[in-house]
Amino acid sequence: MNYKAPIEDIQFSLKHVHGFMEHYESLNIDLNEDLLDPILNEAAKFSEQELDPLNRVGDQEGVQWVDGQVVTPSGFGQAYQSYVDGGWPSLAQPEEVGGQGLPMSLSLTIQEMWQGANQSWSMYAVVTEGVCSTLDKFGTTQQKSQYLPKLVSGDWIGTMAITEPQAGSDVGLINTRAEACGDDCFLITGSKIFISSGDQDISGNVIHLVLARLPGAPAGSRGLSLFIVPKYKLNSDGSLGESNSVSCTSVEHKMGLKGSATCAMHFDGAHGTLLGQEHRGLMAMFTLINKSRLGAAVQAQAQAGGSHQISLAYAKERIQGRSPRSDGKSGADAIIDHPDVQRMLNLQRVISEGSRSLIHGGLKQLDIAQWGDESVAAAAERKLSLMTPILKGCISEWGCEAADLGIQILGGHGYTQDWGAEQRLRDVRVTRIYEGTTGIQAQDFLLRKMLPDVEGAFNLLYKDIDKLSATLTLNGEVKAGILRLQSLVSELRLVTNLLAERATANDGVAEEVAYDYLMISGYILLANQWIVIAKTAHKILQDQNSDGDYLKNKMDIATICFKFMLPRAQGHLAVIKEHLPR
Amino acid sequence: MNYKAPIEDIQFSLKHVHGFMEHYESLNIDLNEDLLDPILNEAAKFSEQELDPLNRVGDQEGVQWVDGQVVTPSGFGQAYQSYVDGGWPSLAQPEEVGGQGLPMSLSLTIQEMWQGANQSWSMYAVVTEGVCSTLDKFGTTQQKSQYLPKLVSGDWIGTMAITEPQAGSDVGLINTRAEACGDDCFLITGSKIFISSGDQDISGNVIHLVLARLPGAPAGSRGLSLFIVPKYKLNSDGSLGESNSVSCTSVEHKMGLKGSATCAMHFDGAHGTLLGQEHRGLMAMFTLINKSRLGAAVQAQAQAGGSHQISLAYAKERIQGRSPRSDGKSGADAIIDHPDVQRMLNLQRVISEGSRSLIHGGLKQLDIAQWGDESVAAAAERKLSLMTPILKGCISEWGCEAADLGIQILGGHGYTQDWGAEQRLRDVRVTRIYEGTTGIQAQDFLLRKMLPDVEGAFNLLYKDIDKLSATLTLNGEVKAGILRLQSLVSELRLVTNLLAERATANDGVAEEVAYDYLMISGYILLANQWIVIAKTAHKILQDQNSDGDYLKNKMDIATICFKFMLPRAQGHLAVIKEHLPR
Repeated sequence: MNYKAPIEDIQFSLKHVHGFMEHYESLNIDLNEDLLDPILNEAAKFSEQELDPLNRVGDQEGVQWVDGQVVTPSGFGQAYQSYVDGGWPSLAQPEEVGGQGLPMSLSLTIQEMWQGANQSWSMYAVVTEGVCSTLDKFGTTQQKSQYLPKLVSGDWIGTMAITEPQAGSDVGLINTRAEACGDDCFLITGSKIFISSGDQDISGNVIHLVLARLPGAPAGSRGLSLFIVPKYKLNSDGSLGESNSVSCTSVEHKMGLKGSATCAMHFDGAHGTLLGQEHRGLMAMFTLINKSRLGAAVQAQAQAGGSHQISLAYAKERIQGRSPRSDGKSGADAIIDHPDVQRMLNLQRVISEGSRSLIHGGLKQLDIAQWGDESVAAAAERKLSLMTPILKGCISEWGCEAADLGIQILGGHGYTQDWGAEQRLRDVRVTRIYEGTTGIQAQDFLLRKMLPDVEGAFNLLYKDIDKLSATLTLNGEVKAGILRLQSLVSELRLVTNLLAERATANDGVAEEVAYDYLMISGYILLANQWIVIAKTAHKILQDQNSDGDYLKNKMDIATICFKFMLPRAQGHLAVIKEHLPR
Repeated sequence: MNYKAPIEDIQFSLKHVHGFMEHYESLNIDLNEDLLDPILNEAAKFSEQELDPLNRVGDQEGVQWVDGQVVTPSGFGQAYQSYVDGGWPSLAQPEEVGGQGLPMSLSLTIQEMWQGANQSWSMYAVVTEGVCSTLDKFGTTQQKSQYLPKLVSGDWIGTMAITEPQAGSDVGLINTRAEACGDDCFLITGSKIFISSGDQDISGNVIHLVLARLPGAPAGSRGLSLFIVPKYKLNSDGSLGESNSVSCTSVEHKMGLKGSATCAMHFDGAHGTLLGQEHRGLMAMFTLINKSRLGAAVQAQAQAGGSHQISLAYAKERIQGRSPRSDGKSGADAIIDHPDVQRMLNLQRVISEGSRSLIHGGLKQLDIAQWGDESVAAAAERKLSLMTPILKGCISEWGCEAADLGIQILGGHGYTQDWGAEQRLRDVRVTRIYEGTTGIQAQDFLLRKMLPDVEGAFNLLYKDIDKLSATLTLNGEVKAGILRLQSLVSELRLVTNLLAERATANDGVAEEVAYDYLMISGYILLANQWIVIAKTAHKILQDQNSDGDYLKNKMDIATICFKFMLPRAQGHLAVIKEHLPR
């Protein structure tokens, strides 16, 4: 069935829940509603008309590997050209390098629509933006002038070449070598795997950012340097020169995301230049990695929404069994009226709309870190750094759950390929793996970010919750939810302090419960978002009387979060308590 | 990687945990260890040598639909012939009809190995057994003599033809018609979908058990009658006659189970005979449905075990990062030493071994219901009826979780097809759908089986837990677990009584929380199984000193159940409490 870009929900979240118009104004970003709305509408059109029709094509044809050439699915190249012609790649790039100077929050907001329509295709589109940011931040004037214009325009596609057969989560094991070959020239030798868009037939050049090790570099992740390695070398006038010694040696066969070229690449003394400082490559790459983690959250959120669209359509038309809430007029009711199906549909909404709201909250911090003055930028960066593993880790988990519920709601028709429900699960499943697995996010969150400064982190993450007033004029269930949320935060604080003490023993207990810890944190922040959403809806309802059903419905879904989703935190908390002294 | 039939674990569960040798003796079933062990070993060999090598073949080739003919994957037919030649189909059929007179518990225990090696292939093998039981129970002498010998031998394959395009979970909507056409002759007309093995190229005939409606039959599920409809009609001498008017109109394209032919069938005035009484067809079909529900639990459990084998092998050989528990001898440790990976591996074991134990417990009841005298058979039947939705519902959920963890442990290599981890998830995913979705199991369990007789049901399900003594000489964690388990049962009793009151309002609240209720019940029974396993291991350790590591390890996994799995029940309980008056 056709994907419908959720424009109304995106606008509600941006403008009303998160006050993005005021946010942009406060950062002197020149983006008002008259500019924003047409951009969102055009993006919706592009995703619905050009990307969505290729979603199943990509899954069924997959990427082919013919005579050593990567062949992308029918129509993918053409859609990419439309994307370039539409100016989408340059949206959030600085004007100095040919971009449109709009904020990254807008670009990532729009990406929800690309990802919801066609996650495989989007893989060719979304990595380049982070490659540009990395180049812009760490590149020399010459590197920028050589590479940025074509990358910003989207004519060339960038990659992040990190993983090697023996080095996945542990990048310190990378052993691709780099040797100097003259002024600003390095020869790169080694094998990389799982490189998205490592090779393809849709862009003029491919620009790899490659982590490799210089002679005499320290072992581990502190001995990595970053290199720019193009597929085609550049002539001095910037035109494409001869092929570099980079080749794709195979494409992966995967559970999903079949239209995305996931390549094994061999660098055989390929020419590259050093990006940033020697041995500081991982730090530079983290610009791209952090961006990709937010991107993975967007993918998962978008797939949750896409999956819900399918389930909702099916549940409205599928007549089966008598609901206890039936009006009794017919022999059987639409399954949307069955409480258990309703539960699953509502959980999908709690996930997709709540996650969108979480992401939009994170994107505000991203903007402030980039556009704000020093007084606020550092705090925003710190908050985003705390939020990123939750956004990436929890939303990818929830996105898979929503897509899995999508199959379940359709029953046998979810397990067959007819409605596209199972493709959504197969595609979104990767978001829990790439850009750092959920386990890696959980370790990062608990061990690196929470435990070393419990109070500081609690202050940044949960301050708003502590300050919530249960006397808010909301419906009773949400009000009761606020009290439970606050007591959960208090309990988590105790547990976190105990874990911080325990972690000094370095006995692996913190690592063991990190997953459950991450999920609790996610449920707390998700529930908080639903309070913010409910408050927003409530306020608009009081101020005006328009669109009442839409707004009341948001408040209903907030109560679902408190009735069906937040309580799960008790299970995760109970796991952690089993590991602590009683 | 190759599947290894878990013979040692199966024997430990059968003989030690569940005392099956004494159980068989008490029911006068002629099955001692000298007979049992060779059967298990032969089954292991067959699954490892003949079925496992076809597992990926089936996934990759899938079932083809060529010129109106169903073509099964290469080797499937040959393996099926070996299966018939080996006498496997007749194992648990009564001797009177040419069977080997062994108990169904043995047949379902062995099915774990078929399913773990190749779930798609097993679909051709396992339905016939239930078809035979149904025929044996409801068939006329003539029907039995016509159909049973060839079905029992496995020469013919049976199907259950229930689902129709408009009638899935709601069988009352079935509208396939049956009209009398003379003595014991009916013409069946209608369309069925999702019929496993509805047509195939590996057996001489296909015998469909078809639910259809006679003229003037009441609407709903009480107007359904059951018919035997062969693909080829039988001549009076029993030989195959002309084709019946039954045809396969398409095969489904599915997320997994691609080697299993899932057929849409059209009955166009096909000749059939009535099986059992008019309008009592659904009741008769339930013999087969209940058996298939246990079978789905076996599939899910088997896939959990198969997935764990892959993950374990990978985690042992994959070197990545430094564990906090590292001996520090090398730069990086095998990921099996990382606490978060260990957690996932252990959860897979809690699921696969605990579920096996739950299933074996259920199979004892199945035997008693069939072989025991009246004094015990009825109670066994009632207990099995209570357990079936838990076995089917919870184990299919957990089996998917284990297979999903299997992907996660392998990271990128789980998402690609190399190790076979992702196929396990795609295959097992269907177990939460067919034979009644988890939602249907949950409604059945809570609304039909628990609420009408709370005390009776608690007595049958949880009596053993109430009687557990926390002074057992087990390790401290399991002892503490017993107390928590008992208090959870008490709390569930309160909640159940509140739900029983609430259910009279018929406002849909019980339906809404039925899923969470089912899961709590499953976690309780699973934890109880782990206590039984730990007690068994502990007792053997005390009695003798052999195989100490194997047994101590079982006790360790029991503690994992209490530390990581049972606590989740708190989350589900919290969901239900949100729906009850405070």
